[in-house]
Amino acid sequence: MFDFDNALIVRLLDLAGIGVFALSGALMAVRLRQTLVTASFFALLTGVGGGSVRDLLIGAPVFWVQDEAISVVCIAIALIVWSTPERWWQGRLLEWADAVGLAAYSVFGTAKAMAWGVPPMPALLMGVITGCVGGIIRDVLAGVPSIIVRPEIYVTAAALASGLFLLLLWLGVGTPFAAVIGAIAGFALRGAAIRWSLALPAYRDPKTGA
Amino acid sequence: MFDFDNALIVRLLDLAGIGVFALSGALMAVRLRQTLVTASFFALLTGVGGGSVRDLLIGAPVFWVQDEAISVVCIAIALIVWSTPERWWQGRLLEWADAVGLAAYSVFGTAKAMAWGVPPMPALLMGVITGCVGGIIRDVLAGVPSIIVRPEIYVTAAALASGLFLLLLWLGVGTPFAAVIGAIAGFALRGAAIRWSLALPAYRDPKTGA
Amino acid sequence: MFDFDNALIVRLLDLAGIGVFALSGALMAVRLRQTLVTASFFALLTGVGGGSVRDLLIGAPVFWVQDEAISVVCIAIALIVWSTPERWWQGRLLEWADAVGLAAYSVFGTAKAMAWGVPPMPALLMGVITGCVGGIIRDVLAGVPSIIVRPEIYVTAAALASGLFLLLLWLGVGTPFAAVIGAIAGFALRGAAIRWSLALPAYRDPKTGA
Repeated sequence: MFDFDNALIVRLLDLAGIGVFALSGALMAVRLRQTLVTASFFALLTGVGGGSVRDLLIGAPVFWVQDEAISVVCIAIALIVWSTPERWWQGRLLEWADAVGLAAYSVFGTAKAMAWGVPPMPALLMGVITGCVGGIIRDVLAGVPSIIVRPEIYVTAAALASGLFLLLLWLGVGTPFAAVIGAIAGFALRGAAIRWSLALPAYRDPKTGA
Repeated sequence: MFDFDNALIVRLLDLAGIGVFALSGALMAVRLRQTLVTASFFALLTGVGGGSVRDLLIGAPVFWVQDEAISVVCIAIALIVWSTPERWWQGRLLEWADAVGLAAYSVFGTAKAMAWGVPPMPALLMGVITGCVGGIIRDVLAGVPSIIVRPEIYVTAAALASGLFLLLLWLGVGTPFAAVIGAIAGFALRGAAIRWSLALPAYRDPKTGA
Repeated sequence: MFDFDNALIVRLLDLAGIGVFALSGALMAVRLRQTLVTASFFALLTGVGGGSVRDLLIGAPVFWVQDEAISVVCIAIALIVWSTPERWWQGRLLEWADAVGLAAYSVFGTAKAMAWGVPPMPALLMGVITGCVGGIIRDVLAGVPSIIVRPEIYVTAAALASGLFLLLLWLGVGTPFAAVIGAIAGFALRGAAIRWSLALPAYRDPKTGA
């Protein structure tokens, strides 16, 4: 049997989501040739944006406002990105960091919503919001088209992570196992979308087939 | 005399607003050739976005988080749009659906704010926010210019709906009648703007007249 | 010794931030040739946007919802801008109004967050959010690139205002004096960025120097 500590798994998913989203925000600011301060602001808003919206919607205190460590971590990540050669961070790293954050944060968001008594369907949506809103904020701040309307799968991967997590819980699987499986499945789908530009069936007109 | 049930009228305005905004969000996702899951996410954020911002601002619990039916309706609307021929939804349907949502949601937002003890002027603004923010979120997500800066009347129609509702209440007209008249007036103004590109006097320089 | 009334200084910083941001929002709407109603909506959202996000994040009641005077002031500013010749408002006035709002609002946001028991680092970030979010909302509504990604210093000036305010408090300087010094420093940095396109060291690749 798996003997994970539930609280630890959930905390790690949370920090993984915050950290890699903060990284993707800092990378965006560096590409825009902004100062260290602006890079820290991007790291923070991208890192905590999705979770902040989730907490506001479910009526929880916003998680990073009283917990000083979280903003310090976001700023430290910005500092690391800013003081290292850009080629370390080149290629598709931003996309892969975003994929890890998406999967981890979606599962975590659903788990937190359920802990606050939100019913399953809105809890699933809270997971998707937690996973997607940070990236949307980053893209809107940067003035680039929001990641969720690019041709590849994005929101769907977040929904898979949250939905599989809920399904496994409902089937009686333990929380840590369900969380890890859900996050891995969401990451795999998003990763496949990045790697092979994989697309699930998008809308095609039943009549014209276009 | 009219014998409407106040609560029923308000509930119907609310559902009309959610439903048609969800429809306009799903149509946008379909035009962007997104998957069913992304279309559902667009439908949800467009449908509940304005009301969520209103509820956060007035300090009310966010209406759809504990009420599972609302997210189910948004997803069902996305499913219907996604599984039907696109030509059913062609032409200006998105704009007209948006116009109905704008008018209904603006009146409903003002009524809800007043029920929470908000004074008239901010209550009017809550109506405008409720009516306009869903469409703004949809447009920002889709990466198109926000509907409120197009040349035709938009915010003004929302303000007319909310303002007329408040004025009629102040004149002693019953809530259901005031609500219906306000919503019809707002819809008529927005409809005229769509149909004839009608514009109220926009800013003209007093000196140059341009 | 300075004998300022703390509450008065803080209230004036607050109103200065709201007023000049409302002005910058109304000017944007006028440039887009919108109606008076839309200009009022822009003035309101730009004027109260940053403070609203701050209040939601720290769990305070949103400041303008019960205080009718604030929305009346925003609408009055829109009315003044709308009924005067555009050349009165030409040149870089929008940028300078925004600079005053940025500095005043950043210090005020940090002071309010601390009054609500937020620790220093998140309180600094609340100041930056209070100062920057109104302008971001204005730019997103207008469909122009967000001000924080233009080449000149912007977020950094907000962080300087908030950070210097916190530093001076920590050094034992009285609140009103620390607030005024912080706001002046932030305004000076932003003003220098506008006047001379001054830029603090932005990201340069340690390897390539580009």
